[in-house]
Amino acid sequence: MATNNTDTICALSTVQGRSAIALIRVSGPDAIAVTDKIFKPIKGSSLSETQGYRLRFGTIFNRERVIDEVLVSVFHSPYSYTGENMIEISCHGSFYIQQEILMLLLNSGARLASPGEFSQRAFLNGKMDLAQAEAVADLIASENEASHRVALQQMKGGFSKELSKMRASMLEIVSLMELELDFAEEDVEFADRGHLKSLLDRVNDHITALTDSFRLGNVIKNGIPVAIAGATNTGKSTLLNLLLGEERAIVSDIHGTTRDYIEGQMNINGVGFRFIDTAGIRETKETIEIIGIERTYEKIRSASVIILMLDAERPEFFAQSLSQLASTADCTNQKIIIVLNKTDRIMSSLSESNLNPPTVYGSAFDSITGEASQTRYFVKIIDDFIAEIKSLCKENNILPAGIIPISAKAMDGIDNLKSALLECRIDTADDSYSTLVTNIRHFEALKDAKTALIRVSEGLDNEIPTDLLAQDIREALFHIGEITGEINTEEILGNIFSKFCIGK
Amino acid sequence: MATNNTDTICALSTVQGRSAIALIRVSGPDAIAVTDKIFKPIKGSSLSETQGYRLRFGTIFNRERVIDEVLVSVFHSPYSYTGENMIEISCHGSFYIQQEILMLLLNSGARLASPGEFSQRAFLNGKMDLAQAEAVADLIASENEASHRVALQQMKGGFSKELSKMRASMLEIVSLMELELDFAEEDVEFADRGHLKSLLDRVNDHITALTDSFRLGNVIKNGIPVAIAGATNTGKSTLLNLLLGEERAIVSDIHGTTRDYIEGQMNINGVGFRFIDTAGIRETKETIEIIGIERTYEKIRSASVIILMLDAERPEFFAQSLSQLASTADCTNQKIIIVLNKTDRIMSSLSESNLNPPTVYGSAFDSITGEASQTRYFVKIIDDFIAEIKSLCKENNILPAGIIPISAKAMDGIDNLKSALLECRIDTADDSYSTLVTNIRHFEALKDAKTALIRVSEGLDNEIPTDLLAQDIREALFHIGEITGEINTEEILGNIFSKFCIGK
Repeated sequence: MATNNTDTICALSTVQGRSAIALIRVSGPDAIAVTDKIFKPIKGSSLSETQGYRLRFGTIFNRERVIDEVLVSVFHSPYSYTGENMIEISCHGSFYIQQEILMLLLNSGARLASPGEFSQRAFLNGKMDLAQAEAVADLIASENEASHRVALQQMKGGFSKELSKMRASMLEIVSLMELELDFAEEDVEFADRGHLKSLLDRVNDHITALTDSFRLGNVIKNGIPVAIAGATNTGKSTLLNLLLGEERAIVSDIHGTTRDYIEGQMNINGVGFRFIDTAGIRETKETIEIIGIERTYEKIRSASVIILMLDAERPEFFAQSLSQLASTADCTNQKIIIVLNKTDRIMSSLSESNLNPPTVYGSAFDSITGEASQTRYFVKIIDDFIAEIKSLCKENNILPAGIIPISAKAMDGIDNLKSALLECRIDTADDSYSTLVTNIRHFEALKDAKTALIRVSEGLDNEIPTDLLAQDIREALFHIGEITGEINTEEILGNIFSKFCIGK
Repeated sequence: MATNNTDTICALSTVQGRSAIALIRVSGPDAIAVTDKIFKPIKGSSLSETQGYRLRFGTIFNRERVIDEVLVSVFHSPYSYTGENMIEISCHGSFYIQQEILMLLLNSGARLASPGEFSQRAFLNGKMDLAQAEAVADLIASENEASHRVALQQMKGGFSKELSKMRASMLEIVSLMELELDFAEEDVEFADRGHLKSLLDRVNDHITALTDSFRLGNVIKNGIPVAIAGATNTGKSTLLNLLLGEERAIVSDIHGTTRDYIEGQMNINGVGFRFIDTAGIRETKETIEIIGIERTYEKIRSASVIILMLDAERPEFFAQSLSQLASTADCTNQKIIIVLNKTDRIMSSLSESNLNPPTVYGSAFDSITGEASQTRYFVKIIDDFIAEIKSLCKENNILPAGIIPISAKAMDGIDNLKSALLECRIDTADDSYSTLVTNIRHFEALKDAKTALIRVSEGLDNEIPTDLLAQDIREALFHIGEITGEINTEEILGNIFSKFCIGK
């Protein structure tokens, strides 16, 4: 593939803003020479004469004008992150200074790096494979222990090692087959088909374990998927905002194909959750949006947990909502939490109407004041609702993980909901997988490899000619190679690295 | 003063957030030992055995678990920013990793640094004086070339050198005086009063030059003060938001004594402006708020530029607004820009009413279409308004720097306003000051020193006893010492460093 590693790139590698320190990175054959043009050491030699892994204190200047006092780290190729000559300038965290230094670097012959370009160079220079480079981005994005652990293990090459073992087995199979092909005219079957088969089964089992791990891996990387379902105006979005806002979560639209749902990630006690708001699902009648709605249903079906929102002011809809849920959800594999929202409205309508408990409850509330009796009456109403919901669940064969009265508006009952969510967590410390696949690109490549290998397996049983089988194995090898980047295209690399931070 | 430099502090020194790299700083006698407990070099010696100004690549670990691969910089006392042993850990910019590393440092014996504590230690260890330390914060906050230049010069000790020269002259004066006192019984006047007087005059001139430079220094540091005045509902706040929003300015409430006005800073073509919205000035009748309003008037009076907003829909208020301005502003020293806002409303009321030009303008609009004639009529109306404003200015002895029709709502005419503001800029490259005072604390100390020295000057003329004069000079020396920090209290230090970034 065409790359241009003869030029020198630079970028701010820390978050932009006012801070004690900011860090600017320079990489490329001329990284040290370019920086020498704008740097004067307080004492000691120039950067070019400085050994690797040394720091120099000095000033960045523009002609005669001093821009900042900085610390500069020097790295000589190949002993650097990118494998090229590298410089890291640690300057004061002023926006103005950051801009000035970058401008000076550009004027001295560097160019601005695109996102992930440092890591891309590290990959192209053989410092890490593609799966490891992708793990760098995952590591930076990691928000909790589990996602951090998986990303770090992948960055350190754990996943790559497994793939390389698998590759070796596949190459053994293919070489046995090709040996047979070389002697095909002599009509000799060199390869012991039984041996081939058992080799193949081992590889297949390994790939299956990896693809199976994706469900857990995806949960670890992106959080446990929780769909918030329910009729319109039950307070789904309010609940989402409340859950996310409270925890200063990273709310993000999903870019790409569809915006029919809103996702937001957050941690509860260090456990990552990914909430999917299905608001608006029934609000449209446009045929063009049917596809979008179907996608939303898919989201509900693929969630690990479903929060069904019911409106305490509209108990007449309970039955309909629960039967709808029963027809959409997979109630054996998905956990269901039923949330009874807007309890504040029940309470306030009681006080507004200055309602006294109806006679039927009279005996229970005899000797208490009006306000206290209202509170008790409120509790009674909620209890009755819960009993009704329970019986509706039974009718619909739903076994809820919890029925929780809340007021999203008054922020009441949220802690109970969080506890219920934590009860639904998936054990991310599951040790049955040595490696977890967390990346959908890897998952797809593994699936493709598996499809090809299944053809080989079936072909062996049906005595398909060896040359056709060898071709299928080569295809599987191709897909494995895509993961680590032995096989890559500029498009694949572009897709991967464009999602990185600038300066990494 | 009581300080505790026996402990080791740590903090994140870069902006918190997801980024390629984050930097954590550790300082104190045990900084290197503390970090060694959680760091394993990939190769080479431990940090304690590493020379200063060297980098080590390795892993941060928690028991057996790897937290990150990091680069660590080592600095041995006194060759570091704080003068203490120091470590800088350059890790991946993941929030989780940053938190984990800080937690590990805390568990290993460090504590979290308070804002500016690294710089405070640098000051207490004699690495820089107080004025230099304050300049570090100014440097980080600098948003344009001029403020950057002044802060850097101060950080590099330019201001301190001037103060030290001044101090030397004052000490010379005081020693001459005290020599006389020692021999007082012999009734001999050693000090040549004429020589004393000329020494004193030189110091006084120097201090006066410094205090005079504060007006410019303050403009450079905080921007040219521009007050936005005008009757209520003329669109003052809309204009402020528009000006600031467009330029991604740092809008900030002024903390402290008063919130009766809103300030926001922005750069126009690299020139800093500080806008003061005086909205609400006439909206209150509460006597308790009179003081607040008086402060707002003060703000208007101390601004370099006043933008007077007029409402094109209410021309009947033009005369009143201009005479009010004439009575508040100092029209000889302040630049006045008159803004005629809401021109969009004139235009839209023309089209809504489908108004045809009245007969009086008929001849000028004879042969043009309705729409074009409306536009021309609109231009005519605005021109008439401007003529009226010009004549009102003459009446009130106001010489406006510009009369600019705008629509803040339709974002029309804003560029003209910006050009007018740039015309009002103060020449920040003024070379007549060798040093600019930018800090109000320094300004106040210099003023206090000057007051004491004026007493000395007058005392010399009135033959006041030398011992009293010497006391006044000592007072002046005290105030100069406050600036560089020879004289300091925990309260002063607390005030200064609490405004710093964490990690600096």
